Amino acid sequence: MTPFKLTDEILETITGHIAQSNNKALEGLLADIHFADVAEIINELSTEEATYLIKLLDSEKTSDILTELDEDMREGILGKLSAKEIAEELSELDTDDAADIVGELPTEMIGQVISAMEDREHAKDIVDLLRYDEDTAGGLMAKELVKVKESWTVLSCVKEMRAQAENVTRVHSIYVVDKEDKLLGRLSLKDLLTAGPKQPLREIYIPKVDAVSVNESTEEVAKIMSKYDLEAIPVVDELGRLVGRITIDDIVDVIKEEAEKDYQLAAGISTDVEADDSIWDLTKARIPWLFLGLIGGVGAAAIMGGFETLIQEHAILFFFTPLIAAMAGNVGVQSSAIVVQGIANDDVKGSIGQRVLKEMLLALLNGVILAVILLLFTWAWKGDLNTAIAIAISLVTVTVAAGVIGTFTPLFLHKRGIDPAIATGPFITTSNDIFGILIYFSIAKVILGF
Amino acid sequence: MTPFKLTDEILETITGHIAQSNNKALEGLLADIHFADVAEIINELSTEEATYLIKLLDSEKTSDILTELDEDMREGILGKLSAKEIAEELSELDTDDAADIVGELPTEMIGQVISAMEDREHAKDIVDLLRYDEDTAGGLMAKELVKVKESWTVLSCVKEMRAQAENVTRVHSIYVVDKEDKLLGRLSLKDLLTAGPKQPLREIYIPKVDAVSVNESTEEVAKIMSKYDLEAIPVVDELGRLVGRITIDDIVDVIKEEAEKDYQLAAGISTDVEADDSIWDLTKARIPWLFLGLIGGVGAAAIMGGFETLIQEHAILFFFTPLIAAMAGNVGVQSSAIVVQGIANDDVKGSIGQRVLKEMLLALLNGVILAVILLLFTWAWKGDLNTAIAIAISLVTVTVAAGVIGTFTPLFLHKRGIDPAIATGPFITTSNDIFGILIYFSIAKVILGF
Repeated sequence: MTPFKLTDEILETITGHIAQSNNKALEGLLADIHFADVAEIINELSTEEATYLIKLLDSEKTSDILTELDEDMREGILGKLSAKEIAEELSELDTDDAADIVGELPTEMIGQVISAMEDREHAKDIVDLLRYDEDTAGGLMAKELVKVKESWTVLSCVKEMRAQAENVTRVHSIYVVDKEDKLLGRLSLKDLLTAGPKQPLREIYIPKVDAVSVNESTEEVAKIMSKYDLEAIPVVDELGRLVGRITIDDIVDVIKEEAEKDYQLAAGISTDVEADDSIWDLTKARIPWLFLGLIGGVGAAAIMGGFETLIQEHAILFFFTPLIAAMAGNVGVQSSAIVVQGIANDDVKGSIGQRVLKEMLLALLNGVILAVILLLFTWAWKGDLNTAIAIAISLVTVTVAAGVIGTFTPLFLHKRGIDPAIATGPFITTSNDIFGILIYFSIAKVILGF
Repeated sequence: MTPFKLTDEILETITGHIAQSNNKALEGLLADIHFADVAEIINELSTEEATYLIKLLDSEKTSDILTELDEDMREGILGKLSAKEIAEELSELDTDDAADIVGELPTEMIGQVISAMEDREHAKDIVDLLRYDEDTAGGLMAKELVKVKESWTVLSCVKEMRAQAENVTRVHSIYVVDKEDKLLGRLSLKDLLTAGPKQPLREIYIPKVDAVSVNESTEEVAKIMSKYDLEAIPVVDELGRLVGRITIDDIVDVIKEEAEKDYQLAAGISTDVEADDSIWDLTKARIPWLFLGLIGGVGAAAIMGGFETLIQEHAILFFFTPLIAAMAGNVGVQSSAIVVQGIANDDVKGSIGQRVLKEMLLALLNGVILAVILLLFTWAWKGDLNTAIAIAISLVTVTVAAGVIGTFTPLFLHKRGIDPAIATGPFITTSNDIFGILIYFSIAKVILGF
């Protein structure tokens, strides 16, 4: 398949049809387009045009479209729909997606929408889900699952399953519970296909089943599911009762969001923003880190001011401050990135001491290689071997210090239970800039003996 | 569930049992541990100890363990196994995992291992998979799938499926083909559960099915599967014949690897390394970018050398060079990161011109805010308003230039078909360092009128 490409032509055709209320043409055109692609189109329309389309199309399709829209656009559209219209959309959705949408509604609207829902069971499930934090397994799970009792036979199980399967988009596993709804095990579809019809489930179910608690963090659930290659995992409450299940497609989103967040933190962007956000939102996300950089630069300038007396005789020292700052920053970012990624993958074993020692050796090796090159260059440039040696030795020292800071900081934060990713990017760069310049001038001062 | 935690005690117990050839204890201990966790344990052992365990345990478990091991460890173990032993491991694996392992073997070994396999059909499937590039759908797919002919009835289909399902770990969809094996559509398990036994498949299958070509890139497959929330996708050859299928758990790995690669590129680490790799491997991955930074620093120093004459009267200008370089670098990294992420998510619409213009406005806004703060500081520090104004105006100009370079470079690379992620991190930082310092001194020179 070639994935859908949103073109200006498609957009123009659609806005044209909307302007002329050409409903037949719109329905025909959009019928063949996947809901995820229709959402992409709607994201580019005005709220009025978008609402027009949502009201026009069948709620079976528009409910899925709503889940895929940008948050701003969805908020705009829902603001223009009545409680009854929203309730209709929700009735088409799985409980997890429905709960996500309800969670975004204004408080006074939530009650009205829930009351307007016809399927009371579905409404109750959605309300249940609302009480979980969105960063926990409870906030991610859906109520839709296929659940059978251990006392049933294969035959009655299949009958029951047919009924339950109507409401479940994807059947992954069949969960086996006791009469108190406590999770006992699972029944694979394969087992069911190959078992005799009169066998009791008690005899064929697999008593071992991985499950997570409703309070587990989504990050941990993602780690478990991807490590053990699970496509779905049941969620149990504090009493071990089966309350929901999480499927791998939700985990894919969690993994992508985690990765984007870490990437943005490393690049010095503090909140989740996208290229298409407003200039003001982008500024709010970016200026805190730039301000941190400003403080670092001012600190470096103040340090250099303290060494001003040697500017006459050793001007060249000042020429290399951007180089020293850049190397300190680069080494720091490299070290911290490897540690942050190692922590994320549970790959970092051994003590902090061992790891810092390794990083020191690594930075020493890198620093010496680079310092030799720099030494030859500065010596050739200015013909002053002493200064060249001073700069080279400073570079090695700064590199080692930067590596140690870059390694130690995320490990330390992690031990304290703080997300180590905040230690990457501008934070490491800025602190290393200041330390780097300070070490550089201090060493130069000793070696050049002034 | 609480995921397995590898402790020093577990490792010591296991190495102790291995040293004493205490096989019973080892088998008992490892039987209850998931293969992914056993792989974690084995990664910490010596090759000899690891091989001992692999030979001891049942190949049903060791084959899965092998797929989860670090590449170095797997290579070490396979080097100590005979062709027949390796063939036994492969026979337990799905074709995609088996092909991955065979692909890592030395060329002369491949033929021997394949000949030693008892299941000739399985061996043929593995050989088929070997010819695909690992970055394509063909390289990712498995041959295991459930395939039925449109001419069958539900009853004969279920009978056939039972046989096929024995070889397929996870049944996602049942693919419907014509007599030439051309993919026609799919049959969901749910449909099969709810249909009557005598209905012909022709009447109940869904004629619409998403499929990818064997030559599609894995990145594109990941995008399609996560966008359309697919848990499995069939793979077709150039003639539209069904040749394999890709499941979401493989896509999770692709997404994680992509994200790690981009993160490492942004942090200035060029090849895929981990915290536990050797110092030499880590140096090879890190020194190219540090060398680039060195060149940038030397370039900046050379530019400052050209402005040496003004060091007497305006020493303060030189104190702020690390600040200017840092701001240019930070703004550049922020801009490029947002663009790179936008491109990865297919979120970047509109022309390059529009986007660069937006970034200019954004950088201008950020730059002015920061410049005002800096102006007040430098004025208060040295009492020289002219120099303070010169530095502030330079900062704004440098910020705008850095934003433009950071936005334009990845967009330009992407248009040329080059991975824009290489433009992040050290590349942008270094070029912005040089441009930044050059712009800074040029503007200062004009304003201060020397």
